Amino acid sequence: MYRSHTCGEINLTNKDQEVQLSGWVQKIRNKGFMVWVDLRDRYGITQLIFDEERSSKGLMEKAGKLGREFVIQVTGEVIERESKNPNIPTGEIEILVSQLNILNTSLTPPFTIEEETDGGEDLRMKYRYLDIRRNPVKNKLMFRHKVGMHVRNYLSQAGFIEVETPYLIKSTPEGARDFVVPSRMNEGQFYALPQSPQTFKQLLMVGGMDKYFQIVKCFRDEDLRADRQPEFTQIDCEMAFVEQEDILNIFEGLTRHLLKEIKGVDISDFPRMTYAEAMAKYGNDKPDIRFGMEFANLNKLAKDKGFNVFDQQELVVGIAVPGAASYTRKEIDKLIDWVKRPQVGANGLVWVKYNEDGSLKSSVDKFYSSEDLLGWAKETGAKAGDLILVMAGDTTKTRTQLSALRMHLGNELGLRNPEEFAPLWVLDFPLLEWDEETQRYHAMHHPFTSPKKEDIALLETNPGEVRANAYDLVLNGNEIGGGSIRIHDKKTQSRMFDYLGFTEEEAKEQFGFLMDAFQYGAPPHGGIAFGFDRLVAILGGQETIRDFIAFPKNNAGRDVMIDAPAKLDEEQLKELHLKLRL
Amino acid sequence: MYRSHTCGEINLTNKDQEVQLSGWVQKIRNKGFMVWVDLRDRYGITQLIFDEERSSKGLMEKAGKLGREFVIQVTGEVIERESKNPNIPTGEIEILVSQLNILNTSLTPPFTIEEETDGGEDLRMKYRYLDIRRNPVKNKLMFRHKVGMHVRNYLSQAGFIEVETPYLIKSTPEGARDFVVPSRMNEGQFYALPQSPQTFKQLLMVGGMDKYFQIVKCFRDEDLRADRQPEFTQIDCEMAFVEQEDILNIFEGLTRHLLKEIKGVDISDFPRMTYAEAMAKYGNDKPDIRFGMEFANLNKLAKDKGFNVFDQQELVVGIAVPGAASYTRKEIDKLIDWVKRPQVGANGLVWVKYNEDGSLKSSVDKFYSSEDLLGWAKETGAKAGDLILVMAGDTTKTRTQLSALRMHLGNELGLRNPEEFAPLWVLDFPLLEWDEETQRYHAMHHPFTSPKKEDIALLETNPGEVRANAYDLVLNGNEIGGGSIRIHDKKTQSRMFDYLGFTEEEAKEQFGFLMDAFQYGAPPHGGIAFGFDRLVAILGGQETIRDFIAFPKNNAGRDVMIDAPAKLDEEQLKELHLKLRL
Repeated sequence: MYRSHTCGEINLTNKDQEVQLSGWVQKIRNKGFMVWVDLRDRYGITQLIFDEERSSKGLMEKAGKLGREFVIQVTGEVIERESKNPNIPTGEIEILVSQLNILNTSLTPPFTIEEETDGGEDLRMKYRYLDIRRNPVKNKLMFRHKVGMHVRNYLSQAGFIEVETPYLIKSTPEGARDFVVPSRMNEGQFYALPQSPQTFKQLLMVGGMDKYFQIVKCFRDEDLRADRQPEFTQIDCEMAFVEQEDILNIFEGLTRHLLKEIKGVDISDFPRMTYAEAMAKYGNDKPDIRFGMEFANLNKLAKDKGFNVFDQQELVVGIAVPGAASYTRKEIDKLIDWVKRPQVGANGLVWVKYNEDGSLKSSVDKFYSSEDLLGWAKETGAKAGDLILVMAGDTTKTRTQLSALRMHLGNELGLRNPEEFAPLWVLDFPLLEWDEETQRYHAMHHPFTSPKKEDIALLETNPGEVRANAYDLVLNGNEIGGGSIRIHDKKTQSRMFDYLGFTEEEAKEQFGFLMDAFQYGAPPHGGIAFGFDRLVAILGGQETIRDFIAFPKNNAGRDVMIDAPAKLDEEQLKELHLKLRL
Repeated sequence: MYRSHTCGEINLTNKDQEVQLSGWVQKIRNKGFMVWVDLRDRYGITQLIFDEERSSKGLMEKAGKLGREFVIQVTGEVIERESKNPNIPTGEIEILVSQLNILNTSLTPPFTIEEETDGGEDLRMKYRYLDIRRNPVKNKLMFRHKVGMHVRNYLSQAGFIEVETPYLIKSTPEGARDFVVPSRMNEGQFYALPQSPQTFKQLLMVGGMDKYFQIVKCFRDEDLRADRQPEFTQIDCEMAFVEQEDILNIFEGLTRHLLKEIKGVDISDFPRMTYAEAMAKYGNDKPDIRFGMEFANLNKLAKDKGFNVFDQQELVVGIAVPGAASYTRKEIDKLIDWVKRPQVGANGLVWVKYNEDGSLKSSVDKFYSSEDLLGWAKETGAKAGDLILVMAGDTTKTRTQLSALRMHLGNELGLRNPEEFAPLWVLDFPLLEWDEETQRYHAMHHPFTSPKKEDIALLETNPGEVRANAYDLVLNGNEIGGGSIRIHDKKTQSRMFDYLGFTEEEAKEQFGFLMDAFQYGAPPHGGIAFGFDRLVAILGGQETIRDFIAFPKNNAGRDVMIDAPAKLDEEQLKELHLKLRL
C-alpha cells in the first residue's frame, strides 16, 4: 500500500498523526526557505510543506526539484495550517513532510490540469488521460457511474433481470448503417454490431424472461452530427404482459427515482402530451416545457387582411416573448438574421411590440389594426411588455423553424435552467413517416412497433395517419427515452414488413427467426430504451454528452488518442478473405 | 396490466379472492368433465381448473382447445385444492377459472419445455427462446444477474468506479487474433474489437481514476475449443498506488463476499502457492485443491534400480489414488488406455497396489523390491488400500499428463463436489514463455506485466527464469481471475517490447499512446480480470459456461438461431471499400 490516507480526508482530527499520501503534484510554491506543494489524487488535495528549519537539507533539495504532475509518495506529520483555506475539506491542515519518494516524473503537460484548462478540444482528446485528471471530467465520469448504479439497483429491485445479449449479430439493412465484422471462420460472411438489442430482447420476452434490462453499448455507422458517437450506451428494457400504461408507470418511477436520489428533485406525475399536440404547441416532438412561448395558430386572425405574404401560406403561427417589447430594432434584426441562417432557413419574421403602456407597434402596421394585433396578443398569450414573433409558410417547416427560434430565445433569456427538471411523456407517435428520397414509408420508431388498434383500418387508406403505441420520454427538451408496445403475432408483423417495402424473402431472411418465434406462444410485450449518455449529461446539467464518455471519438469517428481506426496487415486481410477496394 | 398476480405467489392466504393471471400452458389434463391446466410464468406454476358443474359450456369448450405453450390470460377464484402438491409454493390452491382469454396460440414446440428436455443441443440453440423458458436455463440467467449485481455493489461500495471503455479500438497483432471492423468514413482503415480493455484501464490509472472496474464484453477471434466463445464477459479491474498484496486482499474480499452471499460458504484466508509449487505438486497452474493426490517426485527412489524406462527420463512422478488398490486389472488397463489417448498422449502407467493387508503388488515387481515400493508409498502419501500410479518422461509433458489423470480420477471418484469451494492464489508466474513455433519468447500474461525486481538481471542471462508480479485466482481447478502489477515507466515498457521482438517502430505504432502516457506522471498500478462467464458457471456448480450465456454461439462461431454471420449486400461492401477474396 502506497498510502495510509487519501488526499481528500485528512483534517484537524488527524492532527499530530503520521500519515502517508501518494498523488500528483498539482502546484508548487517555492520560497527557497519554504516549499509548499498541493498534492492531488482522485479524492482531493492536501497541502504539503517542506521548510528549512524543520526539514533536512537533502529533503529541501529534493522538494525543489519537483515538477508539475510528478507522482510522489510522502510521509509526514499532520499539522495545523496558519492560514486556513475554508473552501476545501483539508483546508485546515498541512503535512510537514519527513520523507519524499518520487514514484514517477512527468514531462510538462500540454495543458493545465485545473478546473478550467487552457487546452483546446483536440489537445484534450489526444491526451485524454491527462484531461481525466481534471476535476470537471473526472467528476462527470464518477457521476455516470453513480447514475448507472442507481438504474441497476432500482430495476433489479423491481424484478428486472439484466441479460447480456450478443454483440456479434446479423446485419439488417433497415434503419441506420451497421458496423460489420468479417468472419475468418465463415468465409465471405460478416457479423454486424447491434444498433440495439431490439430483436434479442423481444426473443427474451418470448422466452418468458418477463422483465429484462441491460445497460449496453450500441453501434451506428452514421455520418456523425455534432454530439453523436458511433458507439453509445442504452438502458434497454422490455416487459411482457404489459400495456402502454404499465410501461409509462414503471419508467416514470425509475426517472422519478433518479431525479430524487441524484438531484434531490421531487416530481410527482409527469405530464403527458400527444405527438400532434407537441407539434402544434411547440413545433417539436421533444419540447422543453421549462418555459412557455407556446405556439398560437394565427391563421384565422392574420389571413385575409390584405397581407399577401400570409394569405398564401399554409400556416401563420406566433409566440409571445416575455418582456421583449423593449428590444431595439437592432436586436430584432439580429433575430431576423438568426432565423434566416441556412441552419434554420426561414424567410423572415413579423414582429409586434406590445408595449408596457399598452400600445402596439409592428412590422406590419400597414396591414393590421391595433385591434387585429391585440387579437394576436390574446391568442399568443402576450402581455404588455412582450414581443410577439410570427412566422408563416408550409406547416411542417414553419413549425420546425419557429421551434428553433423558441429554443434559441429560451437559451438567450436564461429560461433553460439546468438545475430545473421538466420531464414529459409524448404519446401517440405516427407509425410511419414518408421518406421523400426513397418515395416510401419508413417505420418512425422501428418495424416492430404496433399500430393502435383503432387506426389499423387507416393503413389501407391513409398510412401516414396511423398512430402507433409508441412513446418518448422527454427531459428538458431532449428525448431521453423512447419505446413502444410491440407486435407479437406473425401475421401483423409480416403485414408490417410488407407495408415497409420488404419482399417476403427479405423479411424471412432478415427477421425470419423473430417471426418463427412469434409462432410459439409470444406474449404481448413492449419496452423502452433510454439514451444513457444523454440522460447522464442532462442529469449532470449539461447538453453535450462528450465529457460524460471516458474516451469519446471525434466527428470523423476517430479516437485521436490511440489513433484508430488504422490500417491492417495484408496478412490479417488475407485471413479474413478480404481485399481493399481503393 | 395483464395480471393481478404472478404464477408463483398465490397460496391459501389468497383463498376466495378473484385473481388474474397470464402465462404459458405448461400441461393440460382433460378428463372431459374437468380440465386442469398448469399455467407457467417466470415466477412459477399455478394450477387452473375448469369443470362442467361450475364453468359455462363455452368456457369448457375453449379450455378444451388449449394446446401446449399457448399464451393465456385467466380470471378466476382462488380455491383450496383437494389433492395438494407440497413441492411447489402454490401447491395448496388452484384457480377456478371464470374467464379465459387466449392471447396467442403456439405451434407444438420442437422439444419439451420441462426441467429435463428431449431436445438435443442443436435444436435447443436454434430455438433458444424456447429453451430459455425451461427452468434450468432461465434460472442460470437469473443467477448470472444476481452475481453481477453483487459484484457491482461490492466494488462500488469499495470505492471502485465503473467506467465504460470503447469497443471500437485499434488492432494489435500481439496476443490472440482481433475481430476487426472496417471503417466507412476512414477508407482502408479498420477498428478492432477489444480482447480486453487492458490499455484503457491503464490509461485511466494514468488519468488518476485510481480504482476502476467494468463488467464488459471482450472478443477473441480464436479457433474455438470446446466451451470457448468468441465474445465473453470479464470483470475488469485496475487500481493505482497498490502493490500485489493490496490487489490480492481486495479481490480475495470480493470473492469471499460472493461465496458467502451467493453460496453461503464461509472461507477465511485463501491459500497461496507459487507457480513453481503448483506445477511440481499438481502439474497444473490451476490446481483443484478440493482433493489430494499430490505429485511425488520419485526420481531418487525409482531411478538407477535397473528399470531402464525410468532411468532415461527426466522426471519420474507418482500419485496415490485413495482406496483404489482394489481396482481390477481391467480397471487399471482402462486407466492406461485413458492416458494413452492422443488427447493425453502418455506412453503408459506404472502401477503399485498397496493392498489393505500391507502387501504390495506392482507392474514393475521385477525391478523393485517391496521396500522400494514402500518408499514410493511413503513419498506419495499412499496408505494401505491405495493405488500408486507413476509416469515418467520429459518434465513439462509428464506433469501435464499426470495432471490430466489426476483430474480424471478426481471426477471418477466423486472428489470434485460442485457445492464445495476451494479458492487458491497462484503467484509468481514466469514473465516469459518460450514459443517453439516462432522461436522466441512471448509474454505469458501480457506485455504490460512487470518483472519481479530481484529477477530483472536474469532478463539478460536466463529470460525464461524471470518471475513476474503476476497472479491467478483459481477456484475448483479453474482459473477464474488473473492479473499483474504493471510496468508504469516508459523505459521498462520499451525494454519489454524489445525482449518480445517488437521493433521500435512497431512498438511505437501499436502502443505509442501508452508509452507517451507513461511520460506524464504514471502512478504504480496493477489489476486483475475475472472471467465472468466461468465464475458464474462455477458458482452455479457447473463447469460449462454455455448455459449461463443467453445466446451463445456454436463451435464454428455461429449463432444458429439468427443465422449469423451472413453475407453482405454488394452495396454494403462497396461503401466499406472492400472486396471479397474468395
